[in-house]
Amino acid sequence: MPSTPAPRIGALLQGARNAITDVAGVLVGHRTLDAGAIQTGVTVIRAHAGDPFRDKVPAAAMVLNGFGKSLGLVQLAELGVLETPIALTNTFCVGTVATAQIRHCVAANPECGRSLPTVNPLVFECNDGFLNDIQRLAVTEADYLHALESAGSDFAQGSVGAGRGMSSFQLKGGIGSASRCVPAPDRRRHTVGTLVLANYGRQAQLVLAGDPVGARLAAQAAAAAQEPEKGSIIIVVATDAPLDARQLRRLALRAGAGLARTGSVLGHGSGDIVLAFSTACTVPDRVERPMPAIALLHEELLDGLFQATADSTEQAILHALWHATAVTGRDGNHRAPLGEVLARLPSFAPARTPA
Amino acid sequence: MPSTPAPRIGALLQGARNAITDVAGVLVGHRTLDAGAIQTGVTVIRAHAGDPFRDKVPAAAMVLNGFGKSLGLVQLAELGVLETPIALTNTFCVGTVATAQIRHCVAANPECGRSLPTVNPLVFECNDGFLNDIQRLAVTEADYLHALESAGSDFAQGSVGAGRGMSSFQLKGGIGSASRCVPAPDRRRHTVGTLVLANYGRQAQLVLAGDPVGARLAAQAAAAAQEPEKGSIIIVVATDAPLDARQLRRLALRAGAGLARTGSVLGHGSGDIVLAFSTACTVPDRVERPMPAIALLHEELLDGLFQATADSTEQAILHALWHATAVTGRDGNHRAPLGEVLARLPSFAPARTPA
Amino acid sequence: MPSTPAPRIGALLQGARNAITDVAGVLVGHRTLDAGAIQTGVTVIRAHAGDPFRDKVPAAAMVLNGFGKSLGLVQLAELGVLETPIALTNTFCVGTVATAQIRHCVAANPECGRSLPTVNPLVFECNDGFLNDIQRLAVTEADYLHALESAGSDFAQGSVGAGRGMSSFQLKGGIGSASRCVPAPDRRRHTVGTLVLANYGRQAQLVLAGDPVGARLAAQAAAAAQEPEKGSIIIVVATDAPLDARQLRRLALRAGAGLARTGSVLGHGSGDIVLAFSTACTVPDRVERPMPAIALLHEELLDGLFQATADSTEQAILHALWHATAVTGRDGNHRAPLGEVLARLPSFAPARTPA
Amino acid sequence: MPSTPAPRIGALLQGARNAITDVAGVLVGHRTLDAGAIQTGVTVIRAHAGDPFRDKVPAAAMVLNGFGKSLGLVQLAELGVLETPIALTNTFCVGTVATAQIRHCVAANPECGRSLPTVNPLVFECNDGFLNDIQRLAVTEADYLHALESAGSDFAQGSVGAGRGMSSFQLKGGIGSASRCVPAPDRRRHTVGTLVLANYGRQAQLVLAGDPVGARLAAQAAAAAQEPEKGSIIIVVATDAPLDARQLRRLALRAGAGLARTGSVLGHGSGDIVLAFSTACTVPDRVERPMPAIALLHEELLDGLFQATADSTEQAILHALWHATAVTGRDGNHRAPLGEVLARLPSFAPARTPA
Repeated sequence: MPSTPAPRIGALLQGARNAITDVAGVLVGHRTLDAGAIQTGVTVIRAHAGDPFRDKVPAAAMVLNGFGKSLGLVQLAELGVLETPIALTNTFCVGTVATAQIRHCVAANPECGRSLPTVNPLVFECNDGFLNDIQRLAVTEADYLHALESAGSDFAQGSVGAGRGMSSFQLKGGIGSASRCVPAPDRRRHTVGTLVLANYGRQAQLVLAGDPVGARLAAQAAAAAQEPEKGSIIIVVATDAPLDARQLRRLALRAGAGLARTGSVLGHGSGDIVLAFSTACTVPDRVERPMPAIALLHEELLDGLFQATADSTEQAILHALWHATAVTGRDGNHRAPLGEVLARLPSFAPARTPA
Repeated sequence: MPSTPAPRIGALLQGARNAITDVAGVLVGHRTLDAGAIQTGVTVIRAHAGDPFRDKVPAAAMVLNGFGKSLGLVQLAELGVLETPIALTNTFCVGTVATAQIRHCVAANPECGRSLPTVNPLVFECNDGFLNDIQRLAVTEADYLHALESAGSDFAQGSVGAGRGMSSFQLKGGIGSASRCVPAPDRRRHTVGTLVLANYGRQAQLVLAGDPVGARLAAQAAAAAQEPEKGSIIIVVATDAPLDARQLRRLALRAGAGLARTGSVLGHGSGDIVLAFSTACTVPDRVERPMPAIALLHEELLDGLFQATADSTEQAILHALWHATAVTGRDGNHRAPLGEVLARLPSFAPARTPA
Repeated sequence: MPSTPAPRIGALLQGARNAITDVAGVLVGHRTLDAGAIQTGVTVIRAHAGDPFRDKVPAAAMVLNGFGKSLGLVQLAELGVLETPIALTNTFCVGTVATAQIRHCVAANPECGRSLPTVNPLVFECNDGFLNDIQRLAVTEADYLHALESAGSDFAQGSVGAGRGMSSFQLKGGIGSASRCVPAPDRRRHTVGTLVLANYGRQAQLVLAGDPVGARLAAQAAAAAQEPEKGSIIIVVATDAPLDARQLRRLALRAGAGLARTGSVLGHGSGDIVLAFSTACTVPDRVERPMPAIALLHEELLDGLFQATADSTEQAILHALWHATAVTGRDGNHRAPLGEVLARLPSFAPARTPA
Repeated sequence: MPSTPAPRIGALLQGARNAITDVAGVLVGHRTLDAGAIQTGVTVIRAHAGDPFRDKVPAAAMVLNGFGKSLGLVQLAELGVLETPIALTNTFCVGTVATAQIRHCVAANPECGRSLPTVNPLVFECNDGFLNDIQRLAVTEADYLHALESAGSDFAQGSVGAGRGMSSFQLKGGIGSASRCVPAPDRRRHTVGTLVLANYGRQAQLVLAGDPVGARLAAQAAAAAQEPEKGSIIIVVATDAPLDARQLRRLALRAGAGLARTGSVLGHGSGDIVLAFSTACTVPDRVERPMPAIALLHEELLDGLFQATADSTEQAILHALWHATAVTGRDGNHRAPLGEVLARLPSFAPARTPA
């Protein structure tokens, strides 16, 4: 980890953990595979501890750049609800993880696909093929279950879970998380929590809390040789504010503002996708169960949540870079952690760090 | 098959096979699984005989109703090209077929996911859980390869391939295909070919070539007890006209007109999705290879193709119903073919049948 | 009007007026301009009798074919509410009617555009340039106000209001309306009401209640010489069911099924747009006023509303054709009513007419 | 203008004018209304000097936040071409400017709306109601024509044209422009030019070239009292690279990255819309004229254009702030120029300024 702590982004309060699990009920689990050329894994985010097929939560996705192979977005766009945990993994293992999600849902709901509808798996991915031998399709259905069962309020960040083999700005990337709080109309506060799987960015583009570190590295010939952008970032945003799918889609877009502040221009080859969900209510699977009566947040109150989404996204990306540890994988490919690069830039002093 | 031949839809000419393979180069293959409670399969459509990862074809999808679990539409919407064969299967086997597509692409392109980008699997599905024990996830990667390798210009319709276990209007559904030709500006003609995987519709809604057969069955108390709509239809439209992804998306929408004429109102639980592609050019995978110079069809000439798309879709659906043979599967569930129902309606004389 | 009454579409009950105003609170008004080469007008639909800028209703649009110049859909897609009456007019007068909507809102809300947000005008259009000298931009702001002030529960159909100069299937088109009722979970019923501005269709395509009248006219050389499709149709769907914008967008799509049954393939040059809104609740403009707590309709209950939307759309189109009277306008251009054509087809006996 | 010159954004070359008119053929004209409470105007951008109704250019829009009343985006999304000049004005004058565009097109094409299709006006807007008495609808059709006729390669920036009454970060905003060049595969270069109408942002959010000036102003209690976001930004991106509408939509999105770097989180009440067009070819209006054969840019070459779009957008916003001069308008409302604020921050030294 760099000797300087991660700069703090923005003026909003952060939650107790400064993580997505500050949104009450949200749980995160990892399964990390670390064995020579296999450097990959699975990360699972649960919106609540119950069965999401029976008690669905409002959700929406925003595809910022669609060079990606995520599964489940067609039905999500139509119906506006999650009905499985959210899974993150490498690009080639989407099929396997989807199959695991289906089997898990069928086990809990034996009429799924018979008298009940089929279930909509939801799997996001980035390509970790630089460090991980992605062609070996190493993630198994059991790995998904392991990540699911280990989900809790406290979870590791950096080179773990789906983030194990990921690269960002030609440095080690991976999992990062953060949260921000905003005043709510009824005097309680609303929390926005974000988790990223960071696998994007060319080094010359890197901006840390407003400091164009990448440009200075390039100017000093200290930067790694430029590689074309072939990464991606998946951003998951949770909130306890009562929002419907249309409003959540608006929220999701604002994660892109946080992403852009880190230097990304949403490169052609980068699958940049945001998922946002609300824990404020659940929608029953069966028509026989009563629908909840919800007073949504008034649209004019979204601005605070938009700021929280952008800030927590930028913060979560910084956390991914700060927590990531060096990994050597396929064919001896190696990604250094951010600290190594910052050590060559003694002047690093981001403008956004509070005095 | 009903004793009356399938009515002919519309006034346009049909191609030599009256099938999607009238579009030169397009190939279709099936793998059918027929073993007791396992009544399912895979159908593969190839846009050309080459490697679609290297030579991509322009394509677009239109989600008419997104209650579906198809994979690959995010990247397709962004980049506007196919880079795998098109696979159709049952809902729970999407992951397995996607994995098979990835392995097949990697075998042909060993740098896929390393120095080359990852590949975008493209798998569509319907729920065949009434006849097929879908919870057994019976389709294997080998089944996909079998369907792929068997693809040719001539192919079976009805209760075959992915259509094996499908139901439509509470009758046996499955695979159907048709084609229509329209004059082209340079005096040659353009062909539109359509293939459907029909698994939708309540019986009371059934309209055959304008004849509201379902309403009469219901009025005569001859209809099956109404089941809620839990089906889907996948419609694949091929053309040799030079169209880009934006124009192909327009084409795809018109398949919905053909679908509506059969009585569908795009039921809530029916994943109704259309994919359209053009074989007029290919886009090279690598930037080093030259891009083709294309003169697209002028927008005002699309109307003929729109009519051809709607008519060939309605015709393909009729062909699916006409070709489908009875199937008994899971728990003794049985779907009768259309002919059994028509035999109870001696007056069937669709208005659209030419004298 | 044809000697045969308009066939009845579908098996659902119709409302008391068989019109959009069967949805309680909805009001419709017309201003018709009939003076030689000027054959045009304005039609206004109000979701309720109050100020829609203060009390907004949930709404969504579905653009089936975007060859159209409607105004207001950008904000509608983002926020999911109406905040003006819905205006229909000719293509070249959209700007004038939008200006009228702005002035009317400012008069009622003097802080609009200052301390309050600006207002989003909502104007739909079709090109009536065959009968109307559209280049004279004849509709004035006063005409909009006249239509608005005259809005009531009872209203004329056919060659009135925005429908004055419209053509459909090379016959006289215009305004039509219908309604259908479906059972609601609490034992009351929900009503779906539809109003169309029909200005689309080539004569050979015409299908009346399943009877391919146009094909027979063409076969008998009785049809008008074919003109390219340059029309459009605007479809407005109202319901009292508690639906949010996402669900209303789903509803709107199903109007396309009703449209397709009449022979349309959504021609290239036809701007085919659907707007759907719910009267079940209103959303306050100011954050200080409480948001309503709404229990939305469960998604599985939408199928009845989908059928009602498709059926009432097809019925409303038939009503437009049945009510339209002959108009002669610009340069002596003339459109005959449907009755003249049907009189040449003594065999007209649509399959859907109940015995 | 601030005593410090505007920081230079990014490492790419800029064009000769550092303005949108560096894209050959593009012309910009203004009409500025400056009379007491009337502080508003019109800005027109022409893609080429010819008639855009006859020779259309490929184009696409990206709605980042749809709280806006722009006209013309429905048809643009469907057909992917511009067919009028691009007009910018205040929110309440969209209707008037659209009417002017229609009349101008009809004058040049007397069959428009008769044997030829109707024309699609394209008008973007921001709300300048703080400085301008927007309720007086001051812009006339003649003002549009004046701006159109005055369009040239050289044009003013700042408080001119549509930018006359606009505010940004509670400072004076308005018109800004910039350009960037990227290597092209055939050894010539491609140019991206951007023009913004900046009317967005709360002061505490302001970031100038990475320097969080707004946060420091807020910390020093030097900032203006916070107002809710009620602004908007319109961003127009031109390029000479051969791109189709799908690719241009991708380009347009990247303008959002440049916008986000200035501190925007795309506030709820801010209509943030991007339009991108290519001058590399024109599409003929009539089917009788031949379609151009185009070799599009390979998708992997878009990354340079994406960077150019983000950088030129950020630069154009800085130019808007740097060029804007103080304006006092309605009710004595006043907006100071950026220089006044920067003078209170002697430490302004943006990290991105080259040494």
